[in-house]
Amino acid sequence: MPTSTQRLAEQAAQKMFSEDRASQSLGMRLLDVRPGYAKLAMTVRPEMTNGHATCHGGFIFALADSAFAFACNSHNLRTVAAGCLIDFLAPAYEGDELTAEATEQARAGRSGVYDAVVTNQNGQRIALFRGRSRQVGGTIVETPHEPA
Amino acid sequence: MPTSTQRLAEQAAQKMFSEDRASQSLGMRLLDVRPGYAKLAMTVRPEMTNGHATCHGGFIFALADSAFAFACNSHNLRTVAAGCLIDFLAPAYEGDELTAEATEQARAGRSGVYDAVVTNQNGQRIALFRGRSRQVGGTIVETPHEPA
Amino acid sequence: MPTSTQRLAEQAAQKMFSEDRASQSLGMRLLDVRPGYAKLAMTVRPEMTNGHATCHGGFIFALADSAFAFACNSHNLRTVAAGCLIDFLAPAYEGDELTAEATEQARAGRSGVYDAVVTNQNGQRIALFRGRSRQVGGTIVETPHEPA
Amino acid sequence: MPTSTQRLAEQAAQKMFSEDRASQSLGMRLLDVRPGYAKLAMTVRPEMTNGHATCHGGFIFALADSAFAFACNSHNLRTVAAGCLIDFLAPAYEGDELTAEATEQARAGRSGVYDAVVTNQNGQRIALFRGRSRQVGGTIVETPHEPA
Repeated sequence: MPTSTQRLAEQAAQKMFSEDRASQSLGMRLLDVRPGYAKLAMTVRPEMTNGHATCHGGFIFALADSAFAFACNSHNLRTVAAGCLIDFLAPAYEGDELTAEATEQARAGRSGVYDAVVTNQNGQRIALFRGRSRQVGGTIVETPHEPA
Repeated sequence: MPTSTQRLAEQAAQKMFSEDRASQSLGMRLLDVRPGYAKLAMTVRPEMTNGHATCHGGFIFALADSAFAFACNSHNLRTVAAGCLIDFLAPAYEGDELTAEATEQARAGRSGVYDAVVTNQNGQRIALFRGRSRQVGGTIVETPHEPA
Repeated sequence: MPTSTQRLAEQAAQKMFSEDRASQSLGMRLLDVRPGYAKLAMTVRPEMTNGHATCHGGFIFALADSAFAFACNSHNLRTVAAGCLIDFLAPAYEGDELTAEATEQARAGRSGVYDAVVTNQNGQRIALFRGRSRQVGGTIVETPHEPA
Repeated sequence: MPTSTQRLAEQAAQKMFSEDRASQSLGMRLLDVRPGYAKLAMTVRPEMTNGHATCHGGFIFALADSAFAFACNSHNLRTVAAGCLIDFLAPAYEGDELTAEATEQARAGRSGVYDAVVTNQNGQRIALFRGRSRQVGGTIVETPHEPA
């Protein structure tokens, strides 16, 4: 049986995803969410490729950034990205199945740090992402007892 | 009359843009390119917004990353992004007209550092971006005298 | 005649520097401070060099970080570093005279972004630094009318 | 019995540390090194504190940067830092015993990405560090069969 923190993470993620036209329009799928963690997948479409015939970095970033967003909002406290670093390790190509897993590294006060790893269908690491988050007040879903 | 380095920057940019399905599909417009510099614009579409009703960071990053790509390939030497930092300063909204200007800060050996600033139609700064580039060999367009 | 914001920047910097054993022990000199700006210098000592016979990145970072600290505390609001990126462009050597200039790029709410450039005695760029700051409450020096 | 890659990591680290006046002058101790990994410790001295009465970020960075340097040179291929991000999570104080552990995240061609975590004597995380490395040619110690 899921704990209440797990239920809350799932409810917040479902609400966020249902309103997140960006992640939906890019074909992202929400695979898993837990407190401080989220996993998303996305297929590289032809229109995501750039002049080097590889996936434009913006879409790799977008996938990692969405995983980060779902992970840092999993505590049902509205949180946004303050700054993000991405290191590109290997190119991604049209048709690749990319997965991003984001994991909470630290949370103190209203700030947090999350790492996301983007891999392709062969388990090869495509990019490493580190995001700094900032709570902005409010919750994603209403709860009987509002968090402080 | 444009110098030959300026002509080369324009030719490389036009070739890159014509093959860059990603930047085209996001509705980016190439406004200006010079050696070590590029300026692009993009309108925030409804499907670029996320669960916070603001532009998903991935699209803001994509615009900055494209400006970076056009700036660092403006010397007609094939160059890719190694790593990028983005700091989000203010949210962007549906309908906003975003502009990204990327400027070369340093180039040594095959590496370079470029800064891009993303602003909205009111001149407000939306994001600051810093990218590290890496030449990978080859040119964008053929030249009578190939660069080393 | 200096404005009151300039006077405040100077008073805050002098107070901070007098208590900053770290910057003093590294031989840093505070050359200039203005609202949102600071300039410091440091000579690379023999004990600052590493196994590659160049200045250890930690000391180059420390100089840039101090310039950042003086710049972001120049409004007399206690501010600390949240995160920093440094890109190393060229090595520094024993005896080099390094200068770091930090400039405010953005300030919104309690957060800010500052860029610092480290150059050597020949004007060569040694490193580029970008820091994200966070106000923590309180002031550096007391003022007749406390800022909010 | 140590493998040859482990022996090489130890020999390279000992040679580097013996020549690294910076790490020595800051009182760093090399606790462990393995291929792609290094662990160092440092005590926060009074002269490492700043105007906020906490350890100057430059010294926390220096410890993480040294762990990064030992980890990325552990393959006995001369490697330097290209760029580094540090996120400060909690302050460190005079007398604190800081430890930095650096771990290889990726290596491709001449580039690599390493993460370092700085903790205090209570196991509290003080800072997260991510460094991008670049091989510059040559080895640290001579070997019967030189690596390519």
